Amino acid sequence: MTAGGGDLPTPDLVARRARLAETLATEGLAGLWVTGAADLAWLTGFTGSNGAVFVRADGRHLLATDARYAGRVDDTDDLEVRIDRDLFAPVATAVSDGLGPVAFDPTAVSHARARTWSERTGDALVARTGLVGGLRLVKDDAEVGRLARACDLTVAAWRVEVVAAGTDLVGVTERELATRIERTMVDLGADGVAFPSIVAAGTNGAVPHHEPTDRPIRAGELVTTDIGARVDGYHADFTRTVAVGEVDDDLLAVHALVERAQAAGVAAVRVGEPVVELDTVARRVITEGGHGDAFVHGVGHGVGLEVHEDPIIALATTDRLSAGMVLTIEPGIYLPGHGGVRIEDTLVVTDDGPRVLTDAPTGAHPSA
Amino acid sequence: MTAGGGDLPTPDLVARRARLAETLATEGLAGLWVTGAADLAWLTGFTGSNGAVFVRADGRHLLATDARYAGRVDDTDDLEVRIDRDLFAPVATAVSDGLGPVAFDPTAVSHARARTWSERTGDALVARTGLVGGLRLVKDDAEVGRLARACDLTVAAWRVEVVAAGTDLVGVTERELATRIERTMVDLGADGVAFPSIVAAGTNGAVPHHEPTDRPIRAGELVTTDIGARVDGYHADFTRTVAVGEVDDDLLAVHALVERAQAAGVAAVRVGEPVVELDTVARRVITEGGHGDAFVHGVGHGVGLEVHEDPIIALATTDRLSAGMVLTIEPGIYLPGHGGVRIEDTLVVTDDGPRVLTDAPTGAHPSA
Repeated sequence: MTAGGGDLPTPDLVARRARLAETLATEGLAGLWVTGAADLAWLTGFTGSNGAVFVRADGRHLLATDARYAGRVDDTDDLEVRIDRDLFAPVATAVSDGLGPVAFDPTAVSHARARTWSERTGDALVARTGLVGGLRLVKDDAEVGRLARACDLTVAAWRVEVVAAGTDLVGVTERELATRIERTMVDLGADGVAFPSIVAAGTNGAVPHHEPTDRPIRAGELVTTDIGARVDGYHADFTRTVAVGEVDDDLLAVHALVERAQAAGVAAVRVGEPVVELDTVARRVITEGGHGDAFVHGVGHGVGLEVHEDPIIALATTDRLSAGMVLTIEPGIYLPGHGGVRIEDTLVVTDDGPRVLTDAPTGAHPSA
Repeated sequence: MTAGGGDLPTPDLVARRARLAETLATEGLAGLWVTGAADLAWLTGFTGSNGAVFVRADGRHLLATDARYAGRVDDTDDLEVRIDRDLFAPVATAVSDGLGPVAFDPTAVSHARARTWSERTGDALVARTGLVGGLRLVKDDAEVGRLARACDLTVAAWRVEVVAAGTDLVGVTERELATRIERTMVDLGADGVAFPSIVAAGTNGAVPHHEPTDRPIRAGELVTTDIGARVDGYHADFTRTVAVGEVDDDLLAVHALVERAQAAGVAAVRVGEPVVELDTVARRVITEGGHGDAFVHGVGHGVGLEVHEDPIIALATTDRLSAGMVLTIEPGIYLPGHGGVRIEDTLVVTDDGPRVLTDAPTGAHPSA
């Protein structure tokens, strides 16, 4: 990971690997072959494009990468770094030496590659999802610190480039505003952006994932900015919709409805609550306001080393909220040909309820 | 795709789909379920995070996405746009209606997802690689135009921020230089960066994929910049290593060796030549110069809608060069504790030999 975390707590990677090894032993697995980028970064700090870690129940872990990334991660007592073009070789060898069942995450590898692995190991390689993801659901202090920093930088950039700009945004293109926000996040200390910024003005606001264009912002429009800074691998996710000048009352009514739905979703955050309840609560407000059909996505998702990670807040979710989960609450209303509104916070679940990391006004006319 | 392509030729997406349909018919396939992002963009222009296109031998193609991306691609005569959370539904329906064998690319889907598809379709779904990749190997005029623009912007930013800066780079951190280059590329007209910039000063140059740090550049060091602009989805890839002030003769000798190897690789580009020959030719120069062990990666790769795409120039490659292929030639020498040099161009294979798109001096002391 990069240096943006600077003064933040150092993650205890050895402890994370030890917890995973314990989980593996409990599950009767001799090892887990971890190839997903976020799982790999969480366990080892490795962030190159080609690497994997073989975590073993016996505590003898191995990071495999190629020569381009030599030296990016150092050997530690519990982790050997092996440079080899054939990353999978240590697993194949251990399996043929009779180590026992080794799991891999079938969502984190292509079908083609999984088949080449299976050809080398036979039935000893088993597909298992969520072994690392389950541990990553609850963030430790090092992670919450980085997420909080990323969220702070994001809100600060939004205050400068959107709130303070006010009606000076008239004539600025969506693309220009996206660039200004992104540069300000980096100038303030972010390592980069969490995802390509969404800036949607006027009728473009009706497209939830609109790509910024050369269309200028006009007076009397709503402008949605969905933005995030990245700090040491951790992502912020923050959306506000603001009015540039005076906006029609019907759009302001839609804005107020989304504000109420979002506040209701945040207020429902409580340890032990079913995750799906957050969606239900926010959706009810919008449905009762007559716009249920225009809220076309789930109310939120987990966020951390990935912009979208578990828990995904959808109808099928059976998880309950735990202290330390970090997630977004982001209802929206999208009216094709007319406009749209989305309001999103990133928050941590705590024993005292939600701690909103993207602390910023939600209204259509925020003041600086 | 975004607007950075502006005045460049419009890609003929209908023709691309027709060519693929023809290939499918020849191969005895009724359809191809395309989920890879680059293949999808090449066939439809769609660039959202969740979409797929079902290309059918009978010419009735279907783009599937969710409501967040409604309106990003319009219906055309040959392509229906279907909004559905269950993207795979059209394939499952067509298969159960007896359409015939449908292929998918097992390198472009997770093992877990491929298994859910197979459960719905049985043996009618078959794994096949390279059906779109084979067509994408040779770039059309719309693609070469975008790649040339991306390369021009990249070189222009390097001239401003590295060459013109000269010894003013002393004291600038790797991270600052990366940011300057990236911003200048965007200011000049790029849509963004092709990949996170590599800026490596002094001993950091020994790490091929070094991440920029807060370490300042010092007088008497070599600085490697591996950078690229992105235009309308197409990527540039360009590396130079320059001397900041006076550098030790032994490092300059290594630099001269890499220059010769790179020039030899470029000079070997010729229609009909085995792709692997480019690696052989460049590697021979470095080996004869006594640094064969320090050239730890392949000499290059194809570039287009992906930063790394076929042809990958490795020992196993059996392809031959065709006119219209776009690839990089990028030998390097990496000396841990000492420093490193890499020199890389992006070029198009033409009937008249290589056309270098990243036209820039390769020496250690370029002049503006």
